[in-house]
Amino acid sequence: MTLKKIAVLPGDGIGPEIMAEAVKVLQALDLPLQLDWADVGGKAYETSGHPLPPATLKLAQEADAVLFGAVGDWKYDKLERALRPEQAILGLRKALGLFANFRPAICYEQLTHASSLKPELVAGLDILIIRELTGDIYFGQPRGRRTAVDGHFPGAEEGFDTMRYSRPEIERIAHVAFQAAQKRNKRLTSVDKANVLETSQLWKDVVSEVQKSYPDVQLDHMYVDNAAMQLVKAPKKFDVVVTGNMFGDILSDEAAMLTGSIGMLPSASLDANNKGLYEPSHGSAPDIAGQGIANPLATILSAAMMLKFSLNHADAAARIETAVQSVLAQGLRTADIWSEGTTKVSTREMGDAVVKAI
Amino acid sequence: MTLKKIAVLPGDGIGPEIMAEAVKVLQALDLPLQLDWADVGGKAYETSGHPLPPATLKLAQEADAVLFGAVGDWKYDKLERALRPEQAILGLRKALGLFANFRPAICYEQLTHASSLKPELVAGLDILIIRELTGDIYFGQPRGRRTAVDGHFPGAEEGFDTMRYSRPEIERIAHVAFQAAQKRNKRLTSVDKANVLETSQLWKDVVSEVQKSYPDVQLDHMYVDNAAMQLVKAPKKFDVVVTGNMFGDILSDEAAMLTGSIGMLPSASLDANNKGLYEPSHGSAPDIAGQGIANPLATILSAAMMLKFSLNHADAAARIETAVQSVLAQGLRTADIWSEGTTKVSTREMGDAVVKAI
Ligand SMILES: CC(C)[C@H](C(=O)O)[C@@H](O)C(=O)O
Ligand SMILES: CC(C)[C@H](C(=O)O)[C@@H](O)C(=O)O
Repeated sequence: MTLKKIAVLPGDGIGPEIMAEAVKVLQALDLPLQLDWADVGGKAYETSGHPLPPATLKLAQEADAVLFGAVGDWKYDKLERALRPEQAILGLRKALGLFANFRPAICYEQLTHASSLKPELVAGLDILIIRELTGDIYFGQPRGRRTAVDGHFPGAEEGFDTMRYSRPEIERIAHVAFQAAQKRNKRLTSVDKANVLETSQLWKDVVSEVQKSYPDVQLDHMYVDNAAMQLVKAPKKFDVVVTGNMFGDILSDEAAMLTGSIGMLPSASLDANNKGLYEPSHGSAPDIAGQGIANPLATILSAAMMLKFSLNHADAAARIETAVQSVLAQGLRTADIWSEGTTKVSTREMGDAVVKAI
Repeated sequence: MTLKKIAVLPGDGIGPEIMAEAVKVLQALDLPLQLDWADVGGKAYETSGHPLPPATLKLAQEADAVLFGAVGDWKYDKLERALRPEQAILGLRKALGLFANFRPAICYEQLTHASSLKPELVAGLDILIIRELTGDIYFGQPRGRRTAVDGHFPGAEEGFDTMRYSRPEIERIAHVAFQAAQKRNKRLTSVDKANVLETSQLWKDVVSEVQKSYPDVQLDHMYVDNAAMQLVKAPKKFDVVVTGNMFGDILSDEAAMLTGSIGMLPSASLDANNKGLYEPSHGSAPDIAGQGIANPLATILSAAMMLKFSLNHADAAARIETAVQSVLAQGLRTADIWSEGTTKVSTREMGDAVVKAI
């Protein structure tokens, strides 16, 4: 087996703590992996003046996969936008061409009660949200501040951004989504705002065209406001959801929170060749950083996704997933998912338990 | 008392049925009101070739307030966008300058069980979402389709839209929101995506500046993805939320659905002089149109909002609200909010019961 290189970027807040556990789990699998660490986010800004220093970017580019913790802390709020921690994640997505973001929203059997929703609405929930990640209003030029020449108040200062999607950008994410749906329950919901936006109308048209290559997948289109409602009303009606960067940001977080266990949810961001960046769906949680109480399972499960999607180690991935199921079955819980009758454990104890179960 | 003119626009789907009940309630109050009907949406397209015919627009412009049912039906999906029913509502907002949209998300005591959320999370819920309604990517020029000259695929066809907000547009909606918060629990959450968007950064800066005139209101800023999560996790933490047109579209619908009784929620869209358009938060529900089972209470409560906000009849508005509370207390329910132990009534029976309670 060839040695696979993983760029390990712990980042800020709880990032280093949860990453330490994921690395421990990877090492326990005894695979031919080379792990290389680098700073990213606020940490990198402090050590080298930029949230995504050239050395970190180079490491990520040369790696076969990137394992990412989390970035961000209130203490960087006053920095100019280009230097803020989040720019690292936006910069990595763009530089590595990670256009396909996989965000599963799964409700684990043992954690059903942790959801805000009534148990019967979320028991067995398993949605996959596929978010386009390198286009849309996130990166669209032109953008900035200027003096308005038209609109409601010509002459006034205004901020502006451009939403845009080209046909091939929509095609490639649609293919990814249809193929994912084929491997699941063969239902795909494309979310847009075609009743208002030109970009969305093209999105809808192109997704419908791509559907012709996947006659076995049932496609429906839904407006984003309705999707935000249906996720609350009947989340289990969804199988795979595909949408643009902006709507995907909102809906994937809403769906993650519905499960009640956002500390459990991994994510993958892939390029055209299945090279990817893997990170927990939750943030850097600076309020609990350094206390050893964060849930490392989303990061551990992200490492599993990485083994499967980018490193061709599906068996090892399955071993991690089974081990996580087993620690849950043992009743071990970090504080965020703890409930009466289960055993509260620290970040490290949870990592150790997963290693032991492997 | 001077005669006040109301433009009554029932629209499509269940619009006519629910409007009939709201009108009945208004008439029962015996106020000096002149009601003038006009077609709008798909109905207007069929009778005169346009969803917002000049005569309808003129009536709305000359009225003191507009009472609006709902527009839209799948059968118009194939029409070009400019002729589709939704254009009527966008056209009215723009032509009448209705920049301030009030979307209460209230959980009625008797309907707590109807929510997807656990009762303890929504009991007593009372959020007011204030959505800017005439700016943002909804109306921003330029927009359209073109050949991309840069981006990921230069030369490809692309769709594009422009998000924009000017300083005075943000100021005026911020003042509305702070003033609304002053009348409530004095907490305002401004929602944006300032970590990514230039428009949002200006939004955030301007809202913070306007806050200086309202030192008694506690302001916080939240990213839209986080807001979508916090609404699910702990909706009662919100008091007043202010946000742009696009984010407001998504969050106000999410919040409405959280209450479990979207058939109960009114909305108001106001101009700078408190002239307004009033409509239920729900849509035209073509699937149940004509069956006499739709819930007319959101429209009836919209009429109450109209009496209070635009027509200076706060007493009459309170009479409607009390009457609605009373029919709920009597156990009367339309199908959408019916549950074991309550009495299922038709659209008309519900309207009659409100009239009787007045
Ligand atoms: C940090 C931020 C720029 C980022 C985004 O909006 O994409 C985050 O919310 C996410 O979803 O990964
Ligand atoms: C019909 C549509 C254009 C409209 C909007 O997006 O504003 C609707 O969803 C609303 O919220 O009133």
